[in-house]
Amino acid sequence: MKTLFIAARSDPEAMAAMFRAELPGHDVVTKAPGDRPVHYAVVGKPLPGTLSSLTGLELVLSLNAGIEHLLASGEVPEGVPIVRMVDPGLVEGMVEWVAAQLLAWHRNLFVYRDQQAAGEWRQHGELMARERVVTVLGAGALGGPVATMLAALGFQVRTWSRSGRAVAGTATFGGDDLAAAVAGADALINLLPATAATTDIIDAALLARLAPGALLVNAGRGAAVVDGDVLAALDAGQLSAAVLDVFRTEPLPADHPFWAHPRVLVSPHVAAPTHARTAVAVMADSVRRHERGEPVPHVVDRSLGY
Amino acid sequence: MKTLFIAARSDPEAMAAMFRAELPGHDVVTKAPGDRPVHYAVVGKPLPGTLSSLTGLELVLSLNAGIEHLLASGEVPEGVPIVRMVDPGLVEGMVEWVAAQLLAWHRNLFVYRDQQAAGEWRQHGELMARERVVTVLGAGALGGPVATMLAALGFQVRTWSRSGRAVAGTATFGGDDLAAAVAGADALINLLPATAATTDIIDAALLARLAPGALLVNAGRGAAVVDGDVLAALDAGQLSAAVLDVFRTEPLPADHPFWAHPRVLVSPHVAAPTHARTAVAVMADSVRRHERGEPVPHVVDRSLGY
Repeated sequence: MKTLFIAARSDPEAMAAMFRAELPGHDVVTKAPGDRPVHYAVVGKPLPGTLSSLTGLELVLSLNAGIEHLLASGEVPEGVPIVRMVDPGLVEGMVEWVAAQLLAWHRNLFVYRDQQAAGEWRQHGELMARERVVTVLGAGALGGPVATMLAALGFQVRTWSRSGRAVAGTATFGGDDLAAAVAGADALINLLPATAATTDIIDAALLARLAPGALLVNAGRGAAVVDGDVLAALDAGQLSAAVLDVFRTEPLPADHPFWAHPRVLVSPHVAAPTHARTAVAVMADSVRRHERGEPVPHVVDRSLGY
Repeated sequence: MKTLFIAARSDPEAMAAMFRAELPGHDVVTKAPGDRPVHYAVVGKPLPGTLSSLTGLELVLSLNAGIEHLLASGEVPEGVPIVRMVDPGLVEGMVEWVAAQLLAWHRNLFVYRDQQAAGEWRQHGELMARERVVTVLGAGALGGPVATMLAALGFQVRTWSRSGRAVAGTATFGGDDLAAAVAGADALINLLPATAATTDIIDAALLARLAPGALLVNAGRGAAVVDGDVLAALDAGQLSAAVLDVFRTEPLPADHPFWAHPRVLVSPHVAAPTHARTAVAVMADSVRRHERGEPVPHVVDRSLGY
């Protein structure tokens, strides 16, 4: 009998019940079982020492799409696959959230709400989605479906990724073509994973290439944007708004200037929550594939960082 | 040479230039030409007397999808077809706007913005679109594409219309099944035209059938909702929010309680603006079809009122 240890900190008992239903014949525990081996570890952001104390690990199943903290911790032994979370609930949530933020900006929802507070009835020229260019950074499990939905909503969509992976219905850019991918774009959506190559990728030089008055949406990782450059671009009017769901430090520190900036929307990392039921189904499927000797999807390539 | 008279009040000269490019060989005027006949009249909400003074009318081309004011004026002679505006820009605009409002409510955009003003980092349980039931009233030129997009975004969509017209990907209701169509719905989207049968259709009894805490979106006509019943449902918690783009009197009078209600979003009739260029192309096409003796799409059935 193999042991699955749920090291997640939020309501592990509820998740254990779901795992027991999915994986009968496994020992599902919510506390580290001392000297006995743990074959599978389910982790969010584990407390230091949690993973390094385990023996017998065959798979680490991440509850998050981003796993840079697991790599940085050095606690996952070399050779143990880390499976990042790509569950349908997470992807759906991200698609909804990005569409919500882009459409809310595009159709002036906050502008009209502020007008209402002032008792003002005033119509603004409303552009059509087909008149706006949106660049999505990232063309993988998240960027692909997001870009496809934005195109379905009518936007002119470009995608950029390291590999230049094609996304149907969008103009595809890759590798060195980042500058071209963002040139003149009315909105920039970041969904890149956190790696050495994506740190600080959204800086003053990149923002300057967007159309004046553009929107920035960051739902990837906080380290992708240079905070000071975003603030400067907002103050100069190069950005009309920034919607930020992820930050270098979370929760965002109380004294960070994003909190009080009138054209920043601070979103408390809610774009793509992991939904326990769909996530457990995906992780149980990974365990079954592993035990049948089949390839497990979404194993992290440690050299790339995702 | 036939005469086309642009009786629209906002920037008729710009529209005239577009018509002259579309319809060479026609006399396009922006002032009523006195005793000479006017074959085609392009109208928004014309000043009283404008239409009744014309002779020779063959078609009235409305700039709006709703034409109840033209019927009520009694100024369009019997037998002269009224063509209502169903232009791609208008349909696209409505799809975008309804999606924006529904997603903004669904993903708590205004909640998080208010939290930011209070410096509060707090996550709420985020449902997935697939966990919400949305009922769209209207299944025609506007309701159909709106319902289809909401289904593509993942919502469980029902449509209701007088005729029960089927919309792919949605559960279709018609005629007497209105109560069943809205039963337990998490959001109600009104896109019905203004007719005797749709006046006051959204009243206390209908709102009581929705799920507690539902969203109401009215982008059809103001007379479809009983204002006092909406306010009472908001205050009782039966509605969590109402997004209203149309009103019985527009602009909404300054003393109307909608302005100050914390859970009403007053939108100044901007959901589906007519876009001059796409609208002129549609109207010119109607003129050409008429002159070739072909059927003209979207002629109003005066007995139905749309």
